Amino acid sequence: MKLTKYIRGRQKLIDNKLKTLIPEANRFPSKIYQAMHYCIIGGKRIRPVLCMASSKICGGKEKNAITAACAIEMLHTYSLIHDDLPSMDNDDYRRGRPSCHRKFNEAIAILTGDAFLTLAYNILSEATKDADINNRIIKELSDVTGTNGMIGGQVVDIQNSKSPADLPTMEYIATHKTGALIAASCKTGAIIAKALRKDEEAIFKYGEYVGFAFQIIDDMLDNEGIVKIFGRKGAYNRARALVNRAKEQLVVFDKGPAYRQAGKKPLIDLADFILERKK
Amino acid sequence: MKLTKYIRGRQKLIDNKLKTLIPEANRFPSKIYQAMHYCIIGGKRIRPVLCMASSKICGGKEKNAITAACAIEMLHTYSLIHDDLPSMDNDDYRRGRPSCHRKFNEAIAILTGDAFLTLAYNILSEATKDADINNRIIKELSDVTGTNGMIGGQVVDIQNSKSPADLPTMEYIATHKTGALIAASCKTGAIIAKALRKDEEAIFKYGEYVGFAFQIIDDMLDNEGIVKIFGRKGAYNRARALVNRAKEQLVVFDKGPAYRQAGKKPLIDLADFILERKK
Repeated sequence: MKLTKYIRGRQKLIDNKLKTLIPEANRFPSKIYQAMHYCIIGGKRIRPVLCMASSKICGGKEKNAITAACAIEMLHTYSLIHDDLPSMDNDDYRRGRPSCHRKFNEAIAILTGDAFLTLAYNILSEATKDADINNRIIKELSDVTGTNGMIGGQVVDIQNSKSPADLPTMEYIATHKTGALIAASCKTGAIIAKALRKDEEAIFKYGEYVGFAFQIIDDMLDNEGIVKIFGRKGAYNRARALVNRAKEQLVVFDKGPAYRQAGKKPLIDLADFILERKK
Repeated sequence: MKLTKYIRGRQKLIDNKLKTLIPEANRFPSKIYQAMHYCIIGGKRIRPVLCMASSKICGGKEKNAITAACAIEMLHTYSLIHDDLPSMDNDDYRRGRPSCHRKFNEAIAILTGDAFLTLAYNILSEATKDADINNRIIKELSDVTGTNGMIGGQVVDIQNSKSPADLPTMEYIATHKTGALIAASCKTGAIIAKALRKDEEAIFKYGEYVGFAFQIIDDMLDNEGIVKIFGRKGAYNRARALVNRAKEQLVVFDKGPAYRQAGKKPLIDLADFILERKK
């Protein structure tokens, strides 16, 4: 499927906002700002678009969610930069270009990851006008990217990189390394919209299923992980089943004002996009 | 000089609190929790003690500042772990024991730094009962540890590691890499105490002078940086002058209730401790 006008529009908004949130590349010490601008280019912005679409379906204004959405993309970007390092996954390329440590050097890559991680919380502290909401989002995102989430997943991933892991281990890696931040991206949008508890839970579950599907497709693209157990067709079927379950969660939005029903389409399109995405 | 009873008491409180804030070492995946507990041991806790003493002089309860104080120690610890890495300062030892990447491995060291950085903001989001204060602290600490502060200082430091830097560059490194977080530790204590603007400014300036002195003494202990320009005696005299200026800032606390005057002693002792500290 092709990216819809809605998704492309949000990608553009996020790209533009990210540029303004990172200090200009000619500022001293320029190397770190050059590296930040280099690394932020070219992502599909799936997590921030999910955040904005989740906020919208819950009755929020998308523009109120864009700062938090950009912080989420920064957290994702930091994790990619550190994961690519020689002592971790040792990837020379990222998004078709040399990875940060190949383009600059290892020290700058470590510091650029640290800089995105730090800048994310800096902007989250002023993400909305409501201090309680900012605190809740910071708690949520630091939970899912910490040792109980993304970092935990990466630890288990590198510990199992030499021998093939069993299914529970693979599922741990998938849900923690990737799934948790995707689910939290959706939940963040709901929190900003001051969603009803029931809506927030539905959107979070949608995010969990979509996040798990995302990791399976990732494994298929890399021919790794779960594909080794279920084969390509089996893995794809699992991902499709997860995407269907994700969509089912959105049934709660059939009731209520028209914007709720209308808000389903972007989230359905995003789920389909994740299922059909290419490298 | 010896550590006073006050300072030793606060160090103990902070040590105990830090242990409870880091998940137990037997939790899955245990390697990351083992590394976190290993790395948090043995610091002098200067920054968190400054935070608590600054809060106290401004009329706050020390126990209200201890969570934020521990988060500050975590931010400091993350920076040490990443700075010690082979691609950065390449230090095999830290606090008399093998550094994190020597004890564990490079990947775990990078992730342990990331974990402390993330956990710091996690606990800061609930550091006090006042959401506005939590937001302000998160903003302040992410400012001074980001590219405008600590990370910026580290970038310039590694760019100048091969040839001796000039005085303005050294001062940039000293104020950004070390001074900024020390000054912010003091300011954080003042913010938590809901200090008057004038008090907050005084305590911040005290922290700036103490932070600069701290880096000069650090350079003397490593025979690096500013010592190469001013010699050991010249550098010590500069540090002593800065400590004197730090103490002068505390004059604003001579007016008002008795706790203000009493609160000066720990801060004067801390400044003296920084001046006379050994490795």
